[in-house]
Amino acid sequence: MEIKIVENILAANEAQARENRDLLSSYGVFAVNVMGPPGAGKTTILEATLQALAGRARSAVIEGDVATTADSEKLARFGIPIVQINTDRFGGHCHLEANMIASALEKISLSSVDILFIENIGNLICPAEFDLGQHSNVIVLDATGGTDKPLKYPLMFHTSQAVLINKIDLSPDGASDAAEISENAIRVNPTVKCFPLSAKTGEGMAHWIEWLLRSAQNAAQRGSHP
Amino acid sequence: MEIKIVENILAANEAQARENRDLLSSYGVFAVNVMGPPGAGKTTILEATLQALAGRARSAVIEGDVATTADSEKLARFGIPIVQINTDRFGGHCHLEANMIASALEKISLSSVDILFIENIGNLICPAEFDLGQHSNVIVLDATGGTDKPLKYPLMFHTSQAVLINKIDLSPDGASDAAEISENAIRVNPTVKCFPLSAKTGEGMAHWIEWLLRSAQNAAQRGSHP
Repeated sequence: MEIKIVENILAANEAQARENRDLLSSYGVFAVNVMGPPGAGKTTILEATLQALAGRARSAVIEGDVATTADSEKLARFGIPIVQINTDRFGGHCHLEANMIASALEKISLSSVDILFIENIGNLICPAEFDLGQHSNVIVLDATGGTDKPLKYPLMFHTSQAVLINKIDLSPDGASDAAEISENAIRVNPTVKCFPLSAKTGEGMAHWIEWLLRSAQNAAQRGSHP
Repeated sequence: MEIKIVENILAANEAQARENRDLLSSYGVFAVNVMGPPGAGKTTILEATLQALAGRARSAVIEGDVATTADSEKLARFGIPIVQINTDRFGGHCHLEANMIASALEKISLSSVDILFIENIGNLICPAEFDLGQHSNVIVLDATGGTDKPLKYPLMFHTSQAVLINKIDLSPDGASDAAEISENAIRVNPTVKCFPLSAKTGEGMAHWIEWLLRSAQNAAQRGSHP
């Protein structure tokens, strides 16, 4: 019975996620679910990404946190639509779910958005189990956090399209750590793209931005964006 | 009904946790639940801690991971009892539960142990909700991971006795970042002790080791260790 209920929750989530994706696609919005452990630099990468996209794509952000609006406040200067979700209202959930995204989408004028970033709760496990309606999953890792994360948290790497290996400027052996993380990620998911970068110094950011814009364009051409 | 079942799971977990704690206390074992996000350095701190305790206290480790035995392998050189729990056997659980600890304890000769370290799954949210039967909760944070974590993940800080702020050698402004993390941790939990340190260089480790040995001793004197 317990398992049955969990299955029902997941099935309901998937139905809502499909609705979200259809809605986003109908407006030509490319949605990216940004996941990763606390402290890897998801928000800092988002700041650098929004900066780089200015004038090239119209962005919006859904910010997920257990508590506080600190991340939304950091992004406010970009003057783009931002909706904060605090899961302590939902019992301190460790991940976002599709119904939370559905509510957030009601507050965004989708016809003025090209790319929607959803910053998930800082957690390398649970968010991978809940489809939100995104078109792409991106993981942010910390190059100083050890090279074994893809092997230790395989589900998230298995379901993602890109891994941003952040803080290569801080890692004592940044290039070789990043190379080892990439190797391990590719062992778990041979099609995943890895981008060693530093959101702080800007190193490597251009490759990620290029991939992001191309992915959004490809999705549109494939008709995910009718 | 869904909530009722969650309550039942938590109640069953708490009953098992009490049994674990009674068992550990009856052998005079002080159990420490080490929590924190992936990549903050839980295992590296454990390595440095086991090294520092050699000859002063007899240690054992229960290693929790979603997948792999990489962490247990790193600790094998200490020649102490180590039990690995992989939660992918339990559906990829994002936290340890008291029944997993009960099974692991059967494999450890408790009469030859003074301090038991339980390395929880890398996750700053869910592990805080599941009592394992430990006597103390310790959080490992990364000084380079931003200073707002205590405010953004309040439950874990609310229920912990110590915060180890690791990687002060890597943080560009290590001392002031650690001070700000400490301030925020104390805002959430005024009694929590914060230890800025580097498991790699050894800086600050002595204060944590001293606190750990004193806490184990105090618990024994209070009669938690009959």
